[in-house]
Amino acid sequence: MGQKGSIIVLTGEGKGKTTAALGMAMRAVGHGFRVAFLQFIKGTWKYGELEAAKRLKPELELEPLGEGFVHVDPLNPDPRDVEVTRKAWEVCKEKILSGHYFMVVLDEINYALSYGLLPLAEVLEVLKKRPDHVHVVLTGRNAPQEIIELADLVTEMKEIKHPFSKGIVSRKGIEY
Amino acid sequence: MGQKGSIIVLTGEGKGKTTAALGMAMRAVGHGFRVAFLQFIKGTWKYGELEAAKRLKPELELEPLGEGFVHVDPLNPDPRDVEVTRKAWEVCKEKILSGHYFMVVLDEINYALSYGLLPLAEVLEVLKKRPDHVHVVLTGRNAPQEIIELADLVTEMKEIKHPFSKGIVSRKGIEY
Repeated sequence: MGQKGSIIVLTGEGKGKTTAALGMAMRAVGHGFRVAFLQFIKGTWKYGELEAAKRLKPELELEPLGEGFVHVDPLNPDPRDVEVTRKAWEVCKEKILSGHYFMVVLDEINYALSYGLLPLAEVLEVLKKRPDHVHVVLTGRNAPQEIIELADLVTEMKEIKHPFSKGIVSRKGIEY
Repeated sequence: MGQKGSIIVLTGEGKGKTTAALGMAMRAVGHGFRVAFLQFIKGTWKYGELEAAKRLKPELELEPLGEGFVHVDPLNPDPRDVEVTRKAWEVCKEKILSGHYFMVVLDEINYALSYGLLPLAEVLEVLKKRPDHVHVVLTGRNAPQEIIELADLVTEMKEIKHPFSKGIVSRKGIEY
């Protein structure tokens, strides 16, 4: 108790999930710990993070894994999306089980899980059998109940007010 | 519309407010933008951030401003706490109004405001008259209603599950 790595879930409809995970990665790197930050959704809007992440090398490894699967029919997912996500998960699994990292961030994995692109049972199993010292952070909307039950810390980001409702467009350095 | 800097509020009882602000700072720095990250509550638990922040220099300036005021009687605040917080605010005000920064983070200012350590009217005035391009991020519990009304984006961090309820103690690289 106390020394085992945590399962940390950042979920909810509000903004700040990936951003909070980035901040956590930054804090860990500040202690000289190794962090793998694995992004299930790839996009050019990650530019700011990618550039900043370079400064946190070599402890921080930021790796985009996905090719984007924003519009998925959960009852009938595109086989290509499933394949890409499975491949991404294989990389994550290896990194978690390697014990090489203090922290592994699975960015937007909740999204992939809720779309049925990944087998929940296998993800739960890997989380349970991870090396004791490994912290795993899972971000994204709609975290499955089983993940929440397994987690040590769950924060829901709740949107109280959003700039798009004021007609403001996405801006460099803020949203991406 | 659209190009003016935003007022962003990260509030709520859950974890991840300062961490999300750090991630935002990191993203902005990734674009080469200047960020002033001003911390109203100082503590040795900021070690991880301070070390990581060094890697984000020179764009990121991380400055602890406060000397800690965790236990404050809002009806009768210690004059020393008021003085220290006022001095901290003077630094913030200058940075915001200078126009030198893309983003100014006022970490835990909501806390100071809710404890009555700072005059809300003056903070609102400075936020309103800031240079157009300056984004201001205000973190901390109990964001005053007037700040929420002025804000463009408000995210509430809601704690669903917390490790301390499982008897886990604060750990290096995670909580600090």
